[in-house]
Amino acid sequence: MGKVYLVGAGPGAPDLLTLRAARILERADIVFHDALVHPEVLSLAARAKIVAVGKRCSQISTDQRFINRALTEAAQRHETVVRLKGGDPMVFGRAQEEIDALAAAGIECEVVPGVTAAVAAAAELKVSLTRRGLSRSVLLATPRIGDDQESSSWAKAVAAADTAMLYMSRGEAPQLVRALRSAGLPADYPAAIVESASLPGAQRLYCTLEQLPQRAAETTGGPALVILGEVLRESVAAATNCEAAASTIETPLTSAVG
Amino acid sequence: MGKVYLVGAGPGAPDLLTLRAARILERADIVFHDALVHPEVLSLAARAKIVAVGKRCSQISTDQRFINRALTEAAQRHETVVRLKGGDPMVFGRAQEEIDALAAAGIECEVVPGVTAAVAAAAELKVSLTRRGLSRSVLLATPRIGDDQESSSWAKAVAAADTAMLYMSRGEAPQLVRALRSAGLPADYPAAIVESASLPGAQRLYCTLEQLPQRAAETTGGPALVILGEVLRESVAAATNCEAAASTIETPLTSAVG
Repeated sequence: MGKVYLVGAGPGAPDLLTLRAARILERADIVFHDALVHPEVLSLAARAKIVAVGKRCSQISTDQRFINRALTEAAQRHETVVRLKGGDPMVFGRAQEEIDALAAAGIECEVVPGVTAAVAAAAELKVSLTRRGLSRSVLLATPRIGDDQESSSWAKAVAAADTAMLYMSRGEAPQLVRALRSAGLPADYPAAIVESASLPGAQRLYCTLEQLPQRAAETTGGPALVILGEVLRESVAAATNCEAAASTIETPLTSAVG
Repeated sequence: MGKVYLVGAGPGAPDLLTLRAARILERADIVFHDALVHPEVLSLAARAKIVAVGKRCSQISTDQRFINRALTEAAQRHETVVRLKGGDPMVFGRAQEEIDALAAAGIECEVVPGVTAAVAAAAELKVSLTRRGLSRSVLLATPRIGDDQESSSWAKAVAAADTAMLYMSRGEAPQLVRALRSAGLPADYPAAIVESASLPGAQRLYCTLEQLPQRAAETTGGPALVILGEVLRESVAAATNCEAAASTIETPLTSAVG
């Protein structure tokens, strides 16, 4: 009977994988991976069979029960089975279903933590998520848009935390802003969107809470995180000043051409 | 002029360092590190001068302004300067002071994200911090014990989140429980303490919120995290049943000896 490793692949860049994850991949017999795992990470598993069981943006392209069964069956035939998930397995990675299924089947399972997208986004912004006198709590959340109680409770949790990181929420920016305004956040609350954190096409967009939908429309389809909090205030002000300065320079030029 | 890398050393185990961090350490000229960084991680920096600027449990053993100045001066003399912090630099790592000081001095700075202690603790417990229908938010917080407003706001943020991870709080367990009960959490709210996550002496202690002080007293001085949330309910129940079964077996034996 083999062992299953639930491994965090990190936020995107292949060298943000841990040394432990790299070593396990090198001796893996079979690897089941999510859609957003970098090809260079997969290439470390030189002797393994590679199986894509991609999910993205909460769209389940392979049924969870199928994945559970595939992992269980693989452990009966192979020594080292890897389930490779974007970021960290225990943060929005649907790991519990797999851990429970493996436990029920009596299969040994180990979780190898990874760099979660939130801290990669913070690195991209060069803004610490905590800060003396300003932020002593960071919330990682997935918004739920709807009219039930669950869909207001995440917004209240965001409002109660000093800094918040919202996963997989770009498409729902207008509803997200409404929910957060209802939960008590002001329209000018500092915000940012980080797209494709740690990857070559990374993008940083600063704005206020009410400008989020318009900023979200500027993203280009990579995985994006929304960050909210006072820790961003200086960066948002600096970015706004830059843009104001740029438009001041542009105006006379445009007039001259006119 | 050199470049300063603010590097996350991960939660403790040396192989939970990222590949990127390992490569930067290998070419580092000088490394300034926190108290809890593993010696094997430091040994990767084979050609570097190693300087301990340890802080632990919010006790500042080296003044922050001294560290800022040391980093700035090092960048004027060396090509690759590394500031190595436990976990991730942007989560309770006091990174902003250093980033701002370097920016003010015109020194290039890059943040290399790391595996934060929260996800290492979750891996240790094999409990996902998020779970469909049960938890869509995770709060990372440092409690503040006192009578001011800031000291009730962290507790409210914990109560508003589905799952919470509290950093550096073991010594203050009784006050912590009082603050969280005032914020509305029930006495039987599921809790756990993970000590020395990812290290050989790792310990997992399950309990309810009101049992936290007594459980905290069982820890042995390693870095500890308190986890709270419904995602722990099954694990707490299972641990309680095990202990109840163990004490049932013990009782007749003790009587027999008596």
